[in-house]
Amino acid sequence: MNGKLSTIALLTDFGSQDSYVAEMKGVILSINSNVNIIDISHNIEPQNILQASLMLKRSYGFFPSRTIFICVVDPDVGSGRKIILIEAEEYSFVAPDNGLLWLTANELSVNKIISLENYDYFLNPTPSTFEGRDKMAPAGSYLSLGIEPGQFGPIQSGIEKLEIPKTQIEKNLLIGEIIYFDRFGNAITNISMDDLMENEPRNLPLVIFGPDEIGHIVSTFSDAANGSAVAYFGSSGYLEMAIFNGNFRLKYSARPGDRVVVDYAK
Amino acid sequence: MNGKLSTIALLTDFGSQDSYVAEMKGVILSINSNVNIIDISHNIEPQNILQASLMLKRSYGFFPSRTIFICVVDPDVGSGRKIILIEAEEYSFVAPDNGLLWLTANELSVNKIISLENYDYFLNPTPSTFEGRDKMAPAGSYLSLGIEPGQFGPIQSGIEKLEIPKTQIEKNLLIGEIIYFDRFGNAITNISMDDLMENEPRNLPLVIFGPDEIGHIVSTFSDAANGSAVAYFGSSGYLEMAIFNGNFRLKYSARPGDRVVVDYAK
Amino acid sequence: MNGKLSTIALLTDFGSQDSYVAEMKGVILSINSNVNIIDISHNIEPQNILQASLMLKRSYGFFPSRTIFICVVDPDVGSGRKIILIEAEEYSFVAPDNGLLWLTANELSVNKIISLENYDYFLNPTPSTFEGRDKMAPAGSYLSLGIEPGQFGPIQSGIEKLEIPKTQIEKNLLIGEIIYFDRFGNAITNISMDDLMENEPRNLPLVIFGPDEIGHIVSTFSDAANGSAVAYFGSSGYLEMAIFNGNFRLKYSARPGDRVVVDYAK
Repeated sequence: MNGKLSTIALLTDFGSQDSYVAEMKGVILSINSNVNIIDISHNIEPQNILQASLMLKRSYGFFPSRTIFICVVDPDVGSGRKIILIEAEEYSFVAPDNGLLWLTANELSVNKIISLENYDYFLNPTPSTFEGRDKMAPAGSYLSLGIEPGQFGPIQSGIEKLEIPKTQIEKNLLIGEIIYFDRFGNAITNISMDDLMENEPRNLPLVIFGPDEIGHIVSTFSDAANGSAVAYFGSSGYLEMAIFNGNFRLKYSARPGDRVVVDYAK
Repeated sequence: MNGKLSTIALLTDFGSQDSYVAEMKGVILSINSNVNIIDISHNIEPQNILQASLMLKRSYGFFPSRTIFICVVDPDVGSGRKIILIEAEEYSFVAPDNGLLWLTANELSVNKIISLENYDYFLNPTPSTFEGRDKMAPAGSYLSLGIEPGQFGPIQSGIEKLEIPKTQIEKNLLIGEIIYFDRFGNAITNISMDDLMENEPRNLPLVIFGPDEIGHIVSTFSDAANGSAVAYFGSSGYLEMAIFNGNFRLKYSARPGDRVVVDYAK
Repeated sequence: MNGKLSTIALLTDFGSQDSYVAEMKGVILSINSNVNIIDISHNIEPQNILQASLMLKRSYGFFPSRTIFICVVDPDVGSGRKIILIEAEEYSFVAPDNGLLWLTANELSVNKIISLENYDYFLNPTPSTFEGRDKMAPAGSYLSLGIEPGQFGPIQSGIEKLEIPKTQIEKNLLIGEIIYFDRFGNAITNISMDDLMENEPRNLPLVIFGPDEIGHIVSTFSDAANGSAVAYFGSSGYLEMAIFNGNFRLKYSARPGDRVVVDYAK
């Protein structure tokens, strides 16, 4: 080679126990061996498109210009949903057309959206049961070799939107839900600071989870006692709930989608 | 460099918490820095040669031609078992001679089997306590530089076979066992579709685990209720047992080697 | 490119679920794409500087000459602690100046210690909330391009020492503590063989953990029964406590800092 290695970044919900991710990497390197393959994460909660979408949005901008992102969180595999390639000014993205790329594409100047359909660039001509490996990985790798996006299939005009669960206001209550958990078991909700401020609270209001009062929103952990639950705005930009030196998810048997209530009257 | 990066793929039971894998990678790059090192998995269950063997067999074919695989699952370390290098037509493999390479070697056209004995290609002349790092990693990396396999030691004529636990038939029962678990806690058994069909069942028979009836084998999850156990043929090609939206391994305190019974009469 | 890829090794307590590590890698590759980025571990216990320090000390010597190590375990982030670059004869290290590099620097011939202060080599001119990504990753990557260490900031004369908890002797008792756990839940203490020998024991003494007698120190596991606790000197060089085929950490609800007593009289 002369010149620089390409970068391909992977984001999936495959975990690190099985060989799925390695098979994708093998396919990528079989097509172009001069690639640096970087794992964004493979520990997205199974089928949690929203979590993957937020992680991609948060991280893609730190990657080198011309990085190719291959994102596989695909609850609708086998349903006829398409696989798309988005070519933006600085970056390219390959993913199922299920909303995963929506938040990121909205921030970028998109040149082209292609539906991946050309079997010449797939691994096997036979029906695939693992499209991350057999379709998305080859497309990303061929792209790194300079293949024109238009070669992979027809242009399509738009992509699936991501339905972010909306918060609701009922009287003195702001109602949201848990979106995902970080590795410490902290719960990240869909309640933004903007949501909170819309009601012009005079004080930091009370957060309620199921039957439990988590407490008033705090701006610092410094007063929290070990094992006590706290609600705060974290690095995600959203309301989070945690156990100080503990695991919120386990303690409350919490799950994505669980309802979270902010009570302005308390 | 001119030309392409080599690929070295690693498969171990070392986990990702300690620095063992990193030390192997450091040794590899000290010998040849122009290598792409790919992790197949480091989360093989400790000392589960069969699981590693099946994962290698499943994944090696997706890697670039000339990939070197270094596989370290080594329950007999210190026992006098040899370390071997298998040179096949497209790929090379370095591993303890304990059966790990058996299933894969049987699929390939093997040119040479070498017993790694030449201390010139080991990291330390002193007795090693970590042969993955001190013997296997250097051998794999020197190999990527084009060192002739014969330089590493004498040719040997065969390799250790892998004793796959065989299924048994007793009257109307087909008896197998759990081989390993995937990351969701699903149990993968040694019962293949061929095993099942040998008895020419008229219906999909009942699967029994210990004192519990798991249920009749199903072809789809669509009817399973949350938390209920199901038995099915999975992507492994073998009979698997799972809890729909749950963890079979934890619920049943299951372990590799646990007996699984298929009852044709029910 | 002509020539060899550089190696940058990462050691953090960020885990593998979130995108923090990937963001650091993206930043590194944005500055120099011809780098092999190797993960030492990202599963250091949160804020356990001592564990990171011991892992770095154990592993750095296996890496290629000129490897750059970026280590981020940073409990004092935001406190005014400095970020330093240590240039030694064979290796360079970037880390918070919190003792993490102490044990390793003591083994090496250090040329220069630089306080990273030059914003020209930081990612953002604005105050950063993630200095691993915004300051340490860029510094390491610029260093791999051959930027002179002196460009990053002023020389400083020393670094923070690491306060390793000292063992104490009280009459017939040698008192130490748990430093960290490996992935099997084995507890690694700060009690070295030298500590043990100082008292010139006639026999292998008894190890006591809280109210429990773990047993006399053994030199081999071969006599241990499944589920029984054992104390021994492990590959760390320190006294370790384990459950044979079990998890010491979970069984005893043990934590780093927990007191461990060796009783010579028993």
